[in-house]
Amino acid sequence: MTRDPIILTTYDWVPDFPRGHVRDIRIRWLLEEIDRPYRIETVPLQKKTPEHLARQPFHQVPMIRDGELSLFESGAILLYLAEGTDLMPGGDDRMRTIQWLIAALNSVEFYSAAWLVGKFFHKNEQSAAEFGKIAQDKLAHLQDVLKGRDWLVAGRFTVADLLMADILRLPAQHGLLDGLPDLRAYHDRALSRPAFQKALADQIAHFRAADAAMAQASA
Amino acid sequence: MTRDPIILTTYDWVPDFPRGHVRDIRIRWLLEEIDRPYRIETVPLQKKTPEHLARQPFHQVPMIRDGELSLFESGAILLYLAEGTDLMPGGDDRMRTIQWLIAALNSVEFYSAAWLVGKFFHKNEQSAAEFGKIAQDKLAHLQDVLKGRDWLVAGRFTVADLLMADILRLPAQHGLLDGLPDLRAYHDRALSRPAFQKALADQIAHFRAADAAMAQASA
Repeated sequence: MTRDPIILTTYDWVPDFPRGHVRDIRIRWLLEEIDRPYRIETVPLQKKTPEHLARQPFHQVPMIRDGELSLFESGAILLYLAEGTDLMPGGDDRMRTIQWLIAALNSVEFYSAAWLVGKFFHKNEQSAAEFGKIAQDKLAHLQDVLKGRDWLVAGRFTVADLLMADILRLPAQHGLLDGLPDLRAYHDRALSRPAFQKALADQIAHFRAADAAMAQASA
Repeated sequence: MTRDPIILTTYDWVPDFPRGHVRDIRIRWLLEEIDRPYRIETVPLQKKTPEHLARQPFHQVPMIRDGELSLFESGAILLYLAEGTDLMPGGDDRMRTIQWLIAALNSVEFYSAAWLVGKFFHKNEQSAAEFGKIAQDKLAHLQDVLKGRDWLVAGRFTVADLLMADILRLPAQHGLLDGLPDLRAYHDRALSRPAFQKALADQIAHFRAADAAMAQASA
């Protein structure tokens, strides 16, 4: 069976600070893990278009297209692409994997992202401190889960670990994993995978190429 | 085929203000929609136990038990219980339903809950205003999606609508849907369903019975 490549849509360009963290990274990482070919398409960040809005009602990225099916929301895209691969266990562990994928978004990223938005977008230190405190409590609970085990479900790396580890990257970079050595080790274990390293390099290269194209266009 | 009832675990008691909004409401609503019998068990809110933590690593509710399988995280429980029922369409609409369920958590509730936490828990008006502004932008985008259609996917009420409508309740009660009549109509359409009304009455009755038991114990 030959399948058309997945079309993964991200922004044409972003400023330096989110590079490496635009959420197409999650999809690139999974596609590398399952060795599935894909092609990048882009939508403009600065002059958002009606075509973009028609496919992504909140005007964000990533989106994918697989034949006739267009999907947005990184968590849903991960579930879709993981189905039927080694990243999604069977039996009851399938539901436990989905549970942990949603917990990564809803019980961990909710607080860590609110902390980040408060700190770096609203530059509201009080708000950042309030959400940061809850985030650290959640991260400590998560470390307890990971004591004495390498991965969240089924004794192996699943799509839930992929999403959780990506979510831990910014907290790790800003000190929220200090004092949580087992969680830090989990983060490092996941991110040392060659598929993540490839995905990260590819996202960085994508936005660097956009810089070069822009420089040339204005020369 | 006879199946054992689902065991749905919630708190033994909560103060007045979250009553009607404890997240077991989502699971009760779905179980009423699919006419599946269930039994309530409780964990203590005020003296949280190691047994609770062993099943729910972030010390929250709801959890369910179905035979051998124990699950937490309301979004995951909804996906599990909806599978194979009218609330989960087939074909490509299955993935679109999962997409919207995750969007409800991640692109709508993320901002509305950050606004709520800022306003009512941290009593930080600036933080609430900042997150409230983003929440209103997301809600306006959501209204655009719902213009000229009753439900999010497949032309019928699905588990994605159930979760989205529950997420809209607190924003609606606090004025964030003012000026968004189509979204308000969607909210009203979903919440007028008898299954929601029954679930709400049952949650309120559960916590009232706890008040009565407490009063008797101290009489």
